[in-house]
Amino acid sequence: MNIPRIRIVLVETSHPGNIGAAARAMKNMGLEELVLVAPEAFPHPQASARASGADDILAAARVVATLPEALVGCALAIGSSARPRHLAAESLEPRGCAALLTGAVARGETCALVFGRERTGLTNAELDHCTQLVHIPTNPAYSSLNVAAAVQVLAYEVRMSWLQRAASDVPAQPAGSDPFTAPATVDEFEQLIEHLQQVAIETGFLDPLKPKHLMRRLRRLFARTRLEAREVAILRGLLSATQGRKRAGRRDSDGD
Amino acid sequence: MNIPRIRIVLVETSHPGNIGAAARAMKNMGLEELVLVAPEAFPHPQASARASGADDILAAARVVATLPEALVGCALAIGSSARPRHLAAESLEPRGCAALLTGAVARGETCALVFGRERTGLTNAELDHCTQLVHIPTNPAYSSLNVAAAVQVLAYEVRMSWLQRAASDVPAQPAGSDPFTAPATVDEFEQLIEHLQQVAIETGFLDPLKPKHLMRRLRRLFARTRLEAREVAILRGLLSATQGRKRAGRRDSDGD
Repeated sequence: MNIPRIRIVLVETSHPGNIGAAARAMKNMGLEELVLVAPEAFPHPQASARASGADDILAAARVVATLPEALVGCALAIGSSARPRHLAAESLEPRGCAALLTGAVARGETCALVFGRERTGLTNAELDHCTQLVHIPTNPAYSSLNVAAAVQVLAYEVRMSWLQRAASDVPAQPAGSDPFTAPATVDEFEQLIEHLQQVAIETGFLDPLKPKHLMRRLRRLFARTRLEAREVAILRGLLSATQGRKRAGRRDSDGD
Repeated sequence: MNIPRIRIVLVETSHPGNIGAAARAMKNMGLEELVLVAPEAFPHPQASARASGADDILAAARVVATLPEALVGCALAIGSSARPRHLAAESLEPRGCAALLTGAVARGETCALVFGRERTGLTNAELDHCTQLVHIPTNPAYSSLNVAAAVQVLAYEVRMSWLQRAASDVPAQPAGSDPFTAPATVDEFEQLIEHLQQVAIETGFLDPLKPKHLMRRLRRLFARTRLEAREVAILRGLLSATQGRKRAGRRDSDGD
């Protein structure tokens, strides 16, 4: 009854008790994989106490230094945000988020749900690494959801979606054996964005001293389309080609 | 944006931290009224610490000695149960539970969501006081949901249902000025059940030494139908009449 391939990523959690409570919420809802990005204190007795029987999740948790490391191999990385909108990515409600995740999992993809710090959430730079955002509707007068409570709500919606999918007996659509028909992973997506930025700077289209929102808008555009690996390869091929042409053009005119 | 008339009732909570976390979850989702049945330690610094800004909910919380006191005036009392079935009451999923609650609230009714002890939940006697049960689907291999996490999930579903109702602009149907067209309150329901039992015992239909499941089955039957106050009055009138006839009959035959 466990739900595979949905990774819970907690970024720089301050209170180990919250890590334990998140692990318990995960296990209750049948999620298994916990990744901690630079936690303040882990392992910690408070984490074990609040996990209350979900110690196996804590024992198997991976600790990494940065968010991109936590997201390697993921086709989707959905960031939990207290703000309903952010320029870089499409924003989902919990139910839509869960449907997206279980659909991806049924196709054999690996996904991540990303949760930020207790007080300040995820930074804009971290949100930029997410392919979508999810916003849990809260009382506008008191919107600071505890991080483990946010994990609980989204894991619950994932379980509900998973059970519905099982009940309606939707046949899983495994990704084809051709790796190019698979959706791009987050790291492939990042390489594309970096490549785009490189080209934008090289061409003078982007002034690195006055970047404005250009890269964020590009991220938004490409994140929304859910690129296939093949499409990333095509785009990057094109970018490389423009770089080659530009260099070639310079060589032609400057003679170097 | 607050949601009125939905009471959260916590029965004999052991850990004050859970009371605080429940208050925070309530406030996040726009619920206001907390009633504590015989809490082990309250007020308590751990409750305030975990409430994290929801101190107003804690300050306004009522402490009572028994579950029936907590439920006075409620048209619905939905008990959270780890077991999906219980003989006495109809069992709901969280989404159906939320729709039932917000529908009742829109008609001006007061409702309660009831949560049991950390280790043992609600007793059968307490479940009997509930008009419906709600079961949060969990991993069967690890189903012990933290009490504040259960409050969080159900309060979240209530908020989602409330927002949907607001978005679809369903006009509220206030209860008529005639108190008899209103649904029966939990205490009126209890009086009916007690009256039924009295009659069942008096008539020899129920052996108090071997009660089996009779009263529970009766509860289930009447709870499922969601009685109006008027209907309770009619039923109790009928019960009184049978008692009067019986006494009258005895008087006739025994001459006392």
